[in-house]
Amino acid sequence: ASISPFTEKDSIKKVRGGGRLEFRSGGVENSCPGCREETSESSREEENDIATRLPELREVLELLRRQRKKEEGSDPSSPSKRWKAGNVFLVGTGPGDPELLTLKAVRLMRTADLVLYDRLVSTSILDMVHEGAKLLYVGKTSGYHSRTQDEIHELLLNFAEAGATVLRLKGGDPLVFGRGGEEMDFLQEQGIAVTVVPGITAASGIAAGLGIPLTHRGVANSVRFLTGHARKGGKDPLYVAEQAADPDSTLVIYMGLATLPALAERFIANGLPPDTPAAAIERGTTEQQRTVFAELANLPSEVAATQLVSPTLIFIGRVVALSPLWP
Amino acid sequence: ASISPFTEKDSIKKVRGGGRLEFRSGGVENSCPGCREETSESSREEENDIATRLPELREVLELLRRQRKKEEGSDPSSPSKRWKAGNVFLVGTGPGDPELLTLKAVRLMRTADLVLYDRLVSTSILDMVHEGAKLLYVGKTSGYHSRTQDEIHELLLNFAEAGATVLRLKGGDPLVFGRGGEEMDFLQEQGIAVTVVPGITAASGIAAGLGIPLTHRGVANSVRFLTGHARKGGKDPLYVAEQAADPDSTLVIYMGLATLPALAERFIANGLPPDTPAAAIERGTTEQQRTVFAELANLPSEVAATQLVSPTLIFIGRVVALSPLWP
Repeated sequence: ASISPFTEKDSIKKVRGGGRLEFRSGGVENSCPGCREETSESSREEENDIATRLPELREVLELLRRQRKKEEGSDPSSPSKRWKAGNVFLVGTGPGDPELLTLKAVRLMRTADLVLYDRLVSTSILDMVHEGAKLLYVGKTSGYHSRTQDEIHELLLNFAEAGATVLRLKGGDPLVFGRGGEEMDFLQEQGIAVTVVPGITAASGIAAGLGIPLTHRGVANSVRFLTGHARKGGKDPLYVAEQAADPDSTLVIYMGLATLPALAERFIANGLPPDTPAAAIERGTTEQQRTVFAELANLPSEVAATQLVSPTLIFIGRVVALSPLWP
Repeated sequence: ASISPFTEKDSIKKVRGGGRLEFRSGGVENSCPGCREETSESSREEENDIATRLPELREVLELLRRQRKKEEGSDPSSPSKRWKAGNVFLVGTGPGDPELLTLKAVRLMRTADLVLYDRLVSTSILDMVHEGAKLLYVGKTSGYHSRTQDEIHELLLNFAEAGATVLRLKGGDPLVFGRGGEEMDFLQEQGIAVTVVPGITAASGIAAGLGIPLTHRGVANSVRFLTGHARKGGKDPLYVAEQAADPDSTLVIYMGLATLPALAERFIANGLPPDTPAAAIERGTTEQQRTVFAELANLPSEVAATQLVSPTLIFIGRVVALSPLWP
């Protein structure tokens, strides 16, 4: 029972202890919804979680609005103090290791008013947010939880309109399977400036740790990032193009743990050799990282035997055997 | 004539002024070999450049060896002072903007003994290397300059064997078209520990700046990184798999400026609609960034008219039109 960076427990304690506003209505028992599997059924709980916190959030909003008004009143001549819509930053925090944060992400974490984060942002990263910021857990956002996503959009909008600088922290890179594009679209339509800060995507961070080159002359001349996501928790991966079964390309599957058996079967049926080197990595780049190396045909059973949980990233391709850790 | 971050001028001045060892034999005139085009003929010059610097480097090596011996002699009981092989770090520095460096890269840049870098590492990033480190320009390494590459390998090896902590700085991510895998392989075979530090790859960094989601529900369910490299400066891209012409995937082409006309033609012949949104970005994320947006069929002529130079990254796919900057 090592401490998982994907548990909110520590940050809740910190939030309570440090006199920050407590946004979470759920207790510690409910601290890691969806932690066990990305296709779990916990979405409703999360939606309720956000819904029950709305009164608190409205209070903070009111506070913020009054504060801005006061600042404006005290010195109306200063343009920097005049009311203006705040900025929203969609910030990638990388795969888990806090040292993989960019300087830009760290700078913003030291100045933001409101920080929204989900379960893929580790507590050691949240610890780097300055004391003056309000932290808000907004649950998981990958997947098809559109109501939750809409509520996050509304929140970002309201706070930005009140003049706050808002960070939306996202694991990895916001524009690689992070639904950053959707949040960006919505806010821009509302006239809110959005700045995207890239993060180290899981593929890069985990490949570096294992010594797997994503491309390598004579072995892989391209790399492709796919999602293994299935609709509504099913087992059938939605987006496995037949063309993806290219032995000269490296494949990286995000969110593919639940659909791995179907994925592997389909890749082999489409032409990937069953002995193609592959790896599945749970919580990559964190201290809790667990890695399974296997040939593609055996990967699903090896992963099942090791009981890997989400988040797990999958590499498929000859480059995997170039890792000094390949058995 | 704005100051290019890809010019070595400033760092040379700094190196000379700050009392650091001057490794470069060429003057300022020769300060940016290969800057104009990745398929240029300047490789021979660079090879000579390294060759003529070998005597100086041997001197530094000797100095380092004596220093280590002295340290060892002064306190042989201290295990930290006992001679041991140094560590080599392959460090990604991101696409250009120094704020996109990771905390880990910055920490290493503040402690390294020897820092090797090529033209894709900007001077504003080199400015962050601490004063005690020796800086060495090793020219361009992407491409087919195997003799140069071998010499870099040897250098890394000799310095690591002498106990130095060596950073090999690389633009972007070392394992995405950075030939990091080859340097890793070589050193590991020689028994030298190699640690790879991932960097923001150009695709992520530039997409964030332009607001182009690399994946987006209903628009692109995967993203693929390809190289447009041609053998020996030719115009025929080596690695454009027919399967890459997938309208549901985002394509990102690294080093594809010289072969862009052939690339675009081939993608369209293989099934990509000629009006697929596309963009070419020179020196992305730096102050010198220049961007050309166009439909795929028109991109080569637009890029030629704008006279983009290397490094230029190319995006192809419907997601490009999601950028708020898309015309």
